[in-house]
Amino acid sequence: MTTTFLDIVKNCDNFPYPNEKIDEENLMLSTVPLLLNNVKIGLIPKTTISALKKYNEQHKKPYPFIIEDTFVTFASHLNTFEERTQIIKNLLITWREEKTFPALEGWRDELYPVYGPSNDIAFVIERSATPLFGVLTFGVHLSAYIRTPEGKLKMWIAKRSKTKPKWPGYLDNTVAGGIPYMLSTSETVVKEAMEEASLPAEIAEKAKPVGAITYFIVTKNGLQPEAEYVYDLELPIDVIPKPLDGEVECFYLWDIDEVKTHILANEFKPNCALVIIDFMIRHSIIKPENEPSYLEILSRLHRRFEFPAPTF
Amino acid sequence: MTTTFLDIVKNCDNFPYPNEKIDEENLMLSTVPLLLNNVKIGLIPKTTISALKKYNEQHKKPYPFIIEDTFVTFASHLNTFEERTQIIKNLLITWREEKTFPALEGWRDELYPVYGPSNDIAFVIERSATPLFGVLTFGVHLSAYIRTPEGKLKMWIAKRSKTKPKWPGYLDNTVAGGIPYMLSTSETVVKEAMEEASLPAEIAEKAKPVGAITYFIVTKNGLQPEAEYVYDLELPIDVIPKPLDGEVECFYLWDIDEVKTHILANEFKPNCALVIIDFMIRHSIIKPENEPSYLEILSRLHRRFEFPAPTF
Repeated sequence: MTTTFLDIVKNCDNFPYPNEKIDEENLMLSTVPLLLNNVKIGLIPKTTISALKKYNEQHKKPYPFIIEDTFVTFASHLNTFEERTQIIKNLLITWREEKTFPALEGWRDELYPVYGPSNDIAFVIERSATPLFGVLTFGVHLSAYIRTPEGKLKMWIAKRSKTKPKWPGYLDNTVAGGIPYMLSTSETVVKEAMEEASLPAEIAEKAKPVGAITYFIVTKNGLQPEAEYVYDLELPIDVIPKPLDGEVECFYLWDIDEVKTHILANEFKPNCALVIIDFMIRHSIIKPENEPSYLEILSRLHRRFEFPAPTF
Repeated sequence: MTTTFLDIVKNCDNFPYPNEKIDEENLMLSTVPLLLNNVKIGLIPKTTISALKKYNEQHKKPYPFIIEDTFVTFASHLNTFEERTQIIKNLLITWREEKTFPALEGWRDELYPVYGPSNDIAFVIERSATPLFGVLTFGVHLSAYIRTPEGKLKMWIAKRSKTKPKWPGYLDNTVAGGIPYMLSTSETVVKEAMEEASLPAEIAEKAKPVGAITYFIVTKNGLQPEAEYVYDLELPIDVIPKPLDGEVECFYLWDIDEVKTHILANEFKPNCALVIIDFMIRHSIIKPENEPSYLEILSRLHRRFEFPAPTF
């Protein structure tokens, strides 16, 4: 059967919706909320729970985590940002040493914020560990494009380096990156535009925020509800993105039909394909009259989460 | 407390989400799905159920509707488009004569399609009755705007006629209308652009489809899950929309700050405010860094429904 844009969206937004039945035997899809002051800030797959119980038992009482059938939360003596951050750090060092989770083999030494009630940061956590707790992560994705003198739109597509630990050799947006602790969305765009595409700040600052996609992907590493703020950047035709930090192998300048073909051939990193599908909807390339699943695609590109999110 | 864009969105997308508790005593929010071949095609508020039971009992057996605690569906002898359309028509004529529902006082004599499994049209129904069955309805909304010689964006805003039965005197998008049976989205745009704004086809055809908003509004008349396909149209500065069919009183050409002020003052028809909020996100006026509820707004503008939708 031919692959459709909806199939591509479902490859990425693949966590069951409330009306879809979850096989409770699947310990990855069967989850327990991570609470802070009764607010849900993560969705812990049951594959994490037994390791969390073991970690508790390696500790003297009071245990650091309260682990009930219907929720997990921090013990009451861990009630500050610093204390929560420290216990999560200790836990992850233990799990990394004991090789408890393959996810931690991709250790990045990057700290991601986890938002709590009132949008305060509840704690920060090593990036590679976020799927073990199903916490919402944030990134920016920039689509750079040109208009030819004939008015034709072409997109700058990155090819990920073959040495990247995740999705090596796959196609990617022109610039993309996670939003680390203490950076805003537009600061992240400017930083990543230089690191990944050699685009100087005076050009990257012209990128326009035009929305966000939100989706919930299940991978072998765990649960990843993600929000990617999307930026458009029309480049002059003589500005050529170039790899700088080794994360990108090369850039292609493709017309829309070429981009579509590579999306439908599953050659893009899944979430990057979604950013381009959103781009194509906003730029009237995908239309109500040529896409039978227009509404379903739009809804799945903007999945609603119950988690707190940042205010930049 | 100051009104926010999120408040404006919640005014319109006000049906509870799956994680929100519904007061079962509220017969409008307590619902029973309308099924066709086991596919949910509507969400009937319990305020409709007793009238539906009464209608059944006015009939000889076999009753036209199967009304169970957990679903409503058509009796098996009503298994074609024509038969379902006819029984709904007879039912509504009865209810209109008996003044069963205030919703039917706004009788429009316009037929709306209700989609069923495989995206076939299950039946058509008088427009004013759609909230009694919570069926998904479809419309187009066009935002016309100009750029001044200084590059400033101004939007054409319609003021609804004071004689309109719904939302008289409220502000509206430049052009908007329901998609009637047998018209496509772009045909509806062209038709409404002439009727409401005197814009000729050669101009209206330049409108670009740039997405859709989907939301679920509860009104005193019933339940309205709605999808509005959104179009942008940049007009030359010398093209002036003018009322034609009496539904619009006049047009204003406002800069963005004026538009924002009128939105936050609740002067727009609720769903039209949402179309402009979506416009402002796509045009980088509302940004991650100036809107704390950016992600929540985007998700609520693209609510996911389980109903079948058209393929134009």
